[in-house]
Amino acid sequence: MSTNENILSIFALGGLNEIGKNMYAIEYADDIIIIDCGNKFPDESLLGIDLIIPDITYLIENKDRVKALLVTHGHEDHIGGIPFFLKKLNVPVYATRFTLGLIEIKLKEHKLLRESELVEINASSKLAFGKIRVEFFRVTHSIPDCLGIVFRTPEGNVVHTGDFKFDLTPEQREERPDIHKMADIGNEGVLLLLSESTNAERPGLTPSEQMVADHLEVAFMNAERKIILSTFASNVSRVQQVVNAAYKTNRKLALLGRSMVNVVEVAIERGYLTVPDGMLIDQNDINELPPEKVAILCTGSQGEPLAALARLSTGNFRGVEVLPKDTVILAAGPIPGNEKSVTSIVDNFYAIGAKVIYGSGSSSGMHVSGHGYQEDLKLMLTLMKPKYFVPIHGELRMLHHHRLLAESVGVEQGNTFIINNGDIIDIEHGIARQTRHIPVGNTYVDGGDVGNVGDFVLRDRKQFSEDGMLIVVLTISKTEGKMLSEPETMSRGFTDSDFSELRKKVKQLTTRIVNELQEENRSERKVLKREIKKSIQQHVFNKMKKKPMVVPIIIEI
Amino acid sequence: MSTNENILSIFALGGLNEIGKNMYAIEYADDIIIIDCGNKFPDESLLGIDLIIPDITYLIENKDRVKALLVTHGHEDHIGGIPFFLKKLNVPVYATRFTLGLIEIKLKEHKLLRESELVEINASSKLAFGKIRVEFFRVTHSIPDCLGIVFRTPEGNVVHTGDFKFDLTPEQREERPDIHKMADIGNEGVLLLLSESTNAERPGLTPSEQMVADHLEVAFMNAERKIILSTFASNVSRVQQVVNAAYKTNRKLALLGRSMVNVVEVAIERGYLTVPDGMLIDQNDINELPPEKVAILCTGSQGEPLAALARLSTGNFRGVEVLPKDTVILAAGPIPGNEKSVTSIVDNFYAIGAKVIYGSGSSSGMHVSGHGYQEDLKLMLTLMKPKYFVPIHGELRMLHHHRLLAESVGVEQGNTFIINNGDIIDIEHGIARQTRHIPVGNTYVDGGDVGNVGDFVLRDRKQFSEDGMLIVVLTISKTEGKMLSEPETMSRGFTDSDFSELRKKVKQLTTRIVNELQEENRSERKVLKREIKKSIQQHVFNKMKKKPMVVPIIIEI
Repeated sequence: MSTNENILSIFALGGLNEIGKNMYAIEYADDIIIIDCGNKFPDESLLGIDLIIPDITYLIENKDRVKALLVTHGHEDHIGGIPFFLKKLNVPVYATRFTLGLIEIKLKEHKLLRESELVEINASSKLAFGKIRVEFFRVTHSIPDCLGIVFRTPEGNVVHTGDFKFDLTPEQREERPDIHKMADIGNEGVLLLLSESTNAERPGLTPSEQMVADHLEVAFMNAERKIILSTFASNVSRVQQVVNAAYKTNRKLALLGRSMVNVVEVAIERGYLTVPDGMLIDQNDINELPPEKVAILCTGSQGEPLAALARLSTGNFRGVEVLPKDTVILAAGPIPGNEKSVTSIVDNFYAIGAKVIYGSGSSSGMHVSGHGYQEDLKLMLTLMKPKYFVPIHGELRMLHHHRLLAESVGVEQGNTFIINNGDIIDIEHGIARQTRHIPVGNTYVDGGDVGNVGDFVLRDRKQFSEDGMLIVVLTISKTEGKMLSEPETMSRGFTDSDFSELRKKVKQLTTRIVNELQEENRSERKVLKREIKKSIQQHVFNKMKKKPMVVPIIIEI
Repeated sequence: MSTNENILSIFALGGLNEIGKNMYAIEYADDIIIIDCGNKFPDESLLGIDLIIPDITYLIENKDRVKALLVTHGHEDHIGGIPFFLKKLNVPVYATRFTLGLIEIKLKEHKLLRESELVEINASSKLAFGKIRVEFFRVTHSIPDCLGIVFRTPEGNVVHTGDFKFDLTPEQREERPDIHKMADIGNEGVLLLLSESTNAERPGLTPSEQMVADHLEVAFMNAERKIILSTFASNVSRVQQVVNAAYKTNRKLALLGRSMVNVVEVAIERGYLTVPDGMLIDQNDINELPPEKVAILCTGSQGEPLAALARLSTGNFRGVEVLPKDTVILAAGPIPGNEKSVTSIVDNFYAIGAKVIYGSGSSSGMHVSGHGYQEDLKLMLTLMKPKYFVPIHGELRMLHHHRLLAESVGVEQGNTFIINNGDIIDIEHGIARQTRHIPVGNTYVDGGDVGNVGDFVLRDRKQFSEDGMLIVVLTISKTEGKMLSEPETMSRGFTDSDFSELRKKVKQLTTRIVNELQEENRSERKVLKREIKKSIQQHVFNKMKKKPMVVPIIIEI
């Protein structure tokens, strides 16, 4: 993309038509500013992939113009890609105190902390990059210290909401949304609004976090023995409420799970969480106290098989045992796709004889969403009164619902852009158009490997995972081209009720093909392999209706 | 289990602590009667498995005592295992007219129809097997012609509800639940009730199918162009409502998807569905009519990737295209686990520019559940007034909720048995005890293979699917034990940014091990393989944090 002095460009590298890997960019003249750099967790079709991060080829090609990474808040889908990003582009990272705490944990793990430039900001900070001035406003979400951003450009103001809901009674007073500042920005004039769409399908207004406080207290009072509660570690308001309920009911609190310990430490140290002296106990002391004096706060609310909650549910957490009449509370809703893992953990606790308090969405009273429902979204649109609107942070149907909401509060029909990652919105003389596109995509992280696992590897994994594999090894004389021994056959992930019969058949087929091709003088390795593969695959499919991967290996001696 | 003249035994071969593969049994003296024989669809951890059916080893061992298979209704989780069952045990199958129609389709596919003994029954039928007399009662569900069963045994009456809800205004009048007969059975006395638990977590009463009718009609009236509607083929009431709405709005109806065509054919032929003459059109005629005169009824409401709806959403259904302003209606709720596949189809239709009417549960008004909510379940318990209660057909947390409901309407604490598949409830002199157990489990169907795919095959598939595979081939001289060529290395589903480096390292490691073991005179194949595997695995893990399957192959020449 060539630099153009008079064009303002806005695009996403991730976060559109998907939930996860949020990364947006604003470009004016020689400056590119990035907003967030998240990851996404793969679904089961991406076999073996650990993490997905945005493909940042475009940014690497325009390295010198990338001036800053601004981070709206500390959730994984907004910060999870940062270490990989900084390895390629060492630009300064701007974030609030709490968000920086979480980013630092990540950078430490990747041994990048020392060389990274981290700049602490708050809702009153003012920054400038070339002709773009940047200010912020406080929004409420399910993690402390969240920001919306306003970019003052020569073309006009662009607003990015971050993730938000309008909770007027959050657990911490300082987390209240700054509605006055938002109103001022709207009055000043907003050229384009980027607003998050996660709950655009849900009617109504998000319930307040206060609802959870009341339910938690009742559950703590009614609990006969140990309490085991799981929530997102980063939901510090929720953690604070658990601390409060434990305090009121005279229980000590133990933390289980690495991210719970890490985040609580950051939160206490930076002043976002207040825990009475002596309340926190080590996990080794849980069994020293009477069960009615103990509460456990743990990770794993999404059913992650290796996290504390899942291990507790199967009796595989060393030193801590859930017993009959203990109370298990799931204070988090399952993210779409995790429902089955979560309910199977609930079943495990029932099998133990524990009391379980759970429920989808807010039905148990133990969880409220951090993302605004339709009325929250309409309020943001009303405050900002944008000329142009780009719904972000959501799958396609959510973006469509969000467009309807925008139109319902006055955004002109035709002024909403439903775009894809990589689609560029160019604004010149106050007019927005979408015509250009940059290449974007997914970068897969697989173990220590970033970006090398491609489609062919995944295709192999998929074929194998469904039907297994048959390996056929031939040894052939280099000089004469003759087979030196009988073909060897082995299988993995594949069985037949009569494997010796199959083995015999594979030998016959292979031998015949080798002989035929030799007679025709076509016995190059490539042809041999192709023909062997084809004929074995056909035989197996006809016989068993399966399509194992067939791997012929030819050894020349 | 030895035959005992005076004991009544009840157990499940499937359906407890799971949703799916329902199969229950009642035993008295020399007679075993089976209720239902369903299948279950595997979750993604069972790589490549097509179907799960109950393990019927116990029944095969007691072949001569198995007298009948009674089928409550025609859903897959109640009839899907029948062909596999009949291949092992050719006993008569008793079912209603509609259910038999669906079973016949299955048996035809398995080429078993001619040799099977199928007996048509209805809600007034009376059967007897040894000392057990069997009667039936009509229940309402989401498929026509459903039965509950009462077994009159010398110990007392045992009732099996089948799947049910209390819909007092079903689409078809003759589908109304026979509450008077249930009340009579309750008055007569019920020793033990087996009642389904699918929706035991949901408060309230299931909405009536009538709600759907109203919403459908409005949607059909508002549709500007083609309508594409997907629902369960077996939900004939829903299909009837679609037919009615199409009739009222002057649209012709095309059926897409094999099971839709099959089931509608059975339903019309057997009198469960009334379609006006000339309304059904061939799929090839869809494009011949103006779009506002066409509705399409198709399979795939669960997001199945090869079914009609998914293919329509990606433009891969030959001859039929969904266009902007067409209306797509999902008249079925996603079964837990299918949410993501369904929403991605919704997104595809939005991308086309279609209008999409969807929603979880009954939020769109286009779907109501066929399984009773808490108030339905309490009504059944109230009508039957059982002494003993066994909640069936559900995962553990559902069974627990159902127990609480039973106690709330008067079943004595301690008289509810929450049991597992294989646990036997024995009743003697009116007293129920649970002490004995038969072996039960899952039988996997994988392609043409039934029961051979075991854990080791699945373990291989899993390891490969996550980290791929490295194959190392050695050729060794039979006589001298020396390597005849350099070890060959290949990989599948696995990459390294520097594969040639890895290949070199694998050769080094392998060569060293072969030499060392030969010097120590320990170079038997088994030891060689084990040592090669261990050292390569270790190297790859240290370098890349991955654990590919390592397969050493040794060829002796």
